[in-house]
Amino acid sequence: MTTLNGKRADLLVRATDPFNGGPTLEQLNANSITPNDAFFVRNHGDIPEIDPSDFRLTVNGMVQQPLALTLDDIKALPAHTITATLQCAGNRRVELATLAPIPNELEWDQEAISTAVWRGARLRDVLAQAGVDAAAAHVAMLGLDEIAKEGETFGFGGSIPLAKALDPDTLLAYEMNDAPLPPTHGYPLRALIPGYIGARSVKWLSQITVQAQPSDNYYQSVAYRLLPSDAQDENAAVMLGELPLISVILSPEPNAVLHSGDVRVQGYAYASEREVERVDVSCDGGQTWRVARMIGEAERWAWRKWEIAVQLTPGQHTLVVRAWDSAAQTQPEQIATVWNIKGYMNNAWHRVAVTVM
Amino acid sequence: MTTLNGKRADLLVRATDPFNGGPTLEQLNANSITPNDAFFVRNHGDIPEIDPSDFRLTVNGMVQQPLALTLDDIKALPAHTITATLQCAGNRRVELATLAPIPNELEWDQEAISTAVWRGARLRDVLAQAGVDAAAAHVAMLGLDEIAKEGETFGFGGSIPLAKALDPDTLLAYEMNDAPLPPTHGYPLRALIPGYIGARSVKWLSQITVQAQPSDNYYQSVAYRLLPSDAQDENAAVMLGELPLISVILSPEPNAVLHSGDVRVQGYAYASEREVERVDVSCDGGQTWRVARMIGEAERWAWRKWEIAVQLTPGQHTLVVRAWDSAAQTQPEQIATVWNIKGYMNNAWHRVAVTVM
Repeated sequence: MTTLNGKRADLLVRATDPFNGGPTLEQLNANSITPNDAFFVRNHGDIPEIDPSDFRLTVNGMVQQPLALTLDDIKALPAHTITATLQCAGNRRVELATLAPIPNELEWDQEAISTAVWRGARLRDVLAQAGVDAAAAHVAMLGLDEIAKEGETFGFGGSIPLAKALDPDTLLAYEMNDAPLPPTHGYPLRALIPGYIGARSVKWLSQITVQAQPSDNYYQSVAYRLLPSDAQDENAAVMLGELPLISVILSPEPNAVLHSGDVRVQGYAYASEREVERVDVSCDGGQTWRVARMIGEAERWAWRKWEIAVQLTPGQHTLVVRAWDSAAQTQPEQIATVWNIKGYMNNAWHRVAVTVM
Repeated sequence: MTTLNGKRADLLVRATDPFNGGPTLEQLNANSITPNDAFFVRNHGDIPEIDPSDFRLTVNGMVQQPLALTLDDIKALPAHTITATLQCAGNRRVELATLAPIPNELEWDQEAISTAVWRGARLRDVLAQAGVDAAAAHVAMLGLDEIAKEGETFGFGGSIPLAKALDPDTLLAYEMNDAPLPPTHGYPLRALIPGYIGARSVKWLSQITVQAQPSDNYYQSVAYRLLPSDAQDENAAVMLGELPLISVILSPEPNAVLHSGDVRVQGYAYASEREVERVDVSCDGGQTWRVARMIGEAERWAWRKWEIAVQLTPGQHTLVVRAWDSAAQTQPEQIATVWNIKGYMNNAWHRVAVTVM
């Protein structure tokens, strides 16, 4: 059951040019590791066609020895495998847009998130080979896609702090769930920056530049910044990197009609580089809470699936979920308090209205 | 102006046996680095009298080579200096207690927090000397204070994950603001675990035990755990470690009577191992927000002081502050959503009611 871009026919397509979409809530709920044909896609341009034998990754900027590495060079480095969740900064934007319009952005529900097993070389091994200057502070990345914007054509780019680039789990990935990277996910090589917004895991990665400042690429310096709620103060815009704590109900789905009695509530929670310590579920809109059961073992960079059986009587109910992380931080209650003009980083309590017969 | 335990006479004393107290909001606001005579004190027993020439720090458990180090041994290791904030898990408990009683706990307002410059040896250098076994996962610490509880007498203890113990900024501290540690702050040696609840920075530190599990000391396994809001599920209690994002208004003080016109609002924000990216202040109870100005430079482990001038018209106003961290995480709006029976980790929006004439 595969269609365009190697994706399932039931993928929720949010845009066709460029192609963007994500799995159904049912698909998200069915798997702890998202199959490649269901993994969400966030592209800003067309998928470049790359001949792997011509491919080179250049490493330049504040390094002692600039590099031009072939795929074989990269695969010859020690391989490292991690299970990591990627999430778009715009996940759950639709909920924010119910409060006030968010123009010109993809209308993601709760599906701009997926988890895969990634294999590749460690970015720090490549940086060690190049030799990083002492004054360097950021690592910029550039992709081979060609994005036309305001009369210019350029590759998608972004940057991460040098310390993050040196994390042993920050990868130059060439495999996704035991298969070569699919073209839509960055074949032949992508960055994999666990815990950060998906935009930093640059696909079709062709250039790494070690530098003193963050990247000036449009997708670092203009887009993917969090503006204040009144959008009045550009100087107060925060470049996005690490993701905030989030939790979502995947089942039952919004407006489900259920039989009274035991109802199984299931979903995901994700705490970036922290751990998900606890997930609470409320059946009365947030007045009282019960503690959900975690499913499986915690993986450092992956979401945590959870479930709980609740008793529901006939009538209307609002199910609510919130999580707590290893810093005893919990989520904001209201979407109004996290609303922003670009619709990024919605991590308010997730509410699902259901009818019980 | 020093009194009991070397503290200022105007310290807010929250208990006398054992001695506990913290600086006034005015004192907190006056300094980025809290003077030793104003630094908050959280003790669970009497201050032990320790002869430095008899002092030994033992290192045992899952190590290749148990150690018994003198103070001179520790001071012979490379010295490292950090500016770090310590905060009690119970800071801002009084606000929670307005909702429902919190029995048998100290009634802290917003003053169970202070910042100092700490100097000491790196814990990881001592661990490297002892040689940590591969299966080790936690580092337990024990103090020389003697706490009587339920018919037993024992030292205050706790533990941190091994990865945190290996952080280059995790210290065995012997100096505080360029002076030897004052007796009430752990003379001659204390742990300094930046970003964690103050309880983990064990004072009068005498023993380090490398082990597979967290400490079973009362203050790790029973106290300093976050219970669910209904306190029904002991298994869901979270052992506290890293602190959540917080922000507090220090000036004007609650119920201040002010002249109309420009009012300077000032306070602190603290994001544990993350950065404070932005501080928002509202003069209308949280309906609209303005971005505060950060004071000074960010230090990795220290609070961030901030200020903003606002225009206030005659009448009643509720000033509110909230912060955003480098993961675009913000704080919960209502104390009701973070209330717990022990009154830990209150990081809801901080509100200060003022009257303008």
